[in-house]
Amino acid sequence: MLAALVNGSPAVTANVAIAVDDRGLNYGDGLFETMLLTNGAIRFLHAHLQRLAASCERLSMSYPGDAVIENDIETVRGKQVEGVIKVLVTRGVGGRGYKPVPNVPSTRVATLHAMPASKADVRARWCETRLSRNPVLAGMKHTNRLEQVLAASEWNDESIDEGLMRDFEGEVVCGTSSNVFIVRNGELVTPDLRFSGVRGVMRDQVLRLAQSLHIPFHEEPLYPHDFDSASEVFVTNAVRGIRAVIELGESRWSRGPMTDALCKALDSHA
Amino acid sequence: MLAALVNGSPAVTANVAIAVDDRGLNYGDGLFETMLLTNGAIRFLHAHLQRLAASCERLSMSYPGDAVIENDIETVRGKQVEGVIKVLVTRGVGGRGYKPVPNVPSTRVATLHAMPASKADVRARWCETRLSRNPVLAGMKHTNRLEQVLAASEWNDESIDEGLMRDFEGEVVCGTSSNVFIVRNGELVTPDLRFSGVRGVMRDQVLRLAQSLHIPFHEEPLYPHDFDSASEVFVTNAVRGIRAVIELGESRWSRGPMTDALCKALDSHA
Repeated sequence: MLAALVNGSPAVTANVAIAVDDRGLNYGDGLFETMLLTNGAIRFLHAHLQRLAASCERLSMSYPGDAVIENDIETVRGKQVEGVIKVLVTRGVGGRGYKPVPNVPSTRVATLHAMPASKADVRARWCETRLSRNPVLAGMKHTNRLEQVLAASEWNDESIDEGLMRDFEGEVVCGTSSNVFIVRNGELVTPDLRFSGVRGVMRDQVLRLAQSLHIPFHEEPLYPHDFDSASEVFVTNAVRGIRAVIELGESRWSRGPMTDALCKALDSHA
Repeated sequence: MLAALVNGSPAVTANVAIAVDDRGLNYGDGLFETMLLTNGAIRFLHAHLQRLAASCERLSMSYPGDAVIENDIETVRGKQVEGVIKVLVTRGVGGRGYKPVPNVPSTRVATLHAMPASKADVRARWCETRLSRNPVLAGMKHTNRLEQVLAASEWNDESIDEGLMRDFEGEVVCGTSSNVFIVRNGELVTPDLRFSGVRGVMRDQVLRLAQSLHIPFHEEPLYPHDFDSASEVFVTNAVRGIRAVIELGESRWSRGPMTDALCKALDSHA
């Protein structure tokens, strides 16, 4: 971490800055956005803020407002022009007990991180850890992430870059920190996320790019056998963009033309 | 909150004490115990420590050890002899990303709270918020608690003391912060918690008391209609003990003889 801001102020000594009774710490009662800082600006800033505001509303959590978050981002980035900025918003401090205390301001954390190493092509595996289903929480980037933590703990082989997760009914949902797409008969298909998973900002952008490139696309349930017969597979993530999956369990793919076209369109639009 | 300790040291000014990159805050990557302090000692201390240690093992999280936790409890209680002590353990600080960093010490938070007001008899309601199913996480008191937060937000009527939660298949699991039991044909029945819910320390004690009182008991799936035909209903919680449910939706009960017998046995054993 290069810099940290809590409620607009630099985090105090040794990165110690959050109250012990913060509801984010105690109950995972929070939301976050992980954003790419490039050329001194946040890529898809508006989409990130929109998702955060909409998720705050779904959880009846107070949204600090675009201007406040944008100001945090500007302050924490300082003179940095490339990197990753994470914004975390919790329901604030509040009592012992699950019931939220009304009218408590949310806690805001903004942190600046170095750009992580990233490969254009991804070797992936199937995770054993399954995702539970809850349509009320599906789509949001909330901080109840134990399932992702357990899934990401499953492998130590550094040549594996991502793990794909299924839910308990066997539907493929996402990577541990990415959304996933396949190409089938020249059409783009991605899981519909009606029961679990995060509706990624990059996922939405890819669907938008597909539309502008006149590529037919579908959001629907996918199963591992759909991957066996796919002509291309790729994963998306706000920081790392679009990455071709070239290996998944026993399956192998070469980087394909639709993945390339979408990468190119992303570079020219972003 | 009357006192707080982070990693064995008093929390610094204004209860600001947790690092912004703590995994508990960022991913709900933690566990907690809420314990009754009475006559200067923790009721069922050994059972709390045992559950915490077992859950740390299930999540491959480093357990600080009984002696360390007991020392935290002794320090944070100071001269207080009655109240509530909460111990929270997270996977510690660590990077941006779900994958845990190996060999990072866990973060320990111990807090002392005043004894909450509590009624002997409970008016309860059915919550609309459902629990998702994940046998890998079931039973543990982890900090992924958004479902409980949403459920506890459903009512503002202060005469309602607890909400009972079902999972997405309609099985009754627990209260937002309690386990639930019914009496059916003179036998005690409680949900088996194979898919969700917390295996409460008080729940285990009640099953133990039932055994010593020769009351037949079963852990099995329960549905709302089982409550309609129950002769007694009660909820349990480590701090508040055993409380009779006298109202649940349209149903009414009087405090029953088995609830009384178990309360009496608890008082004489604890």
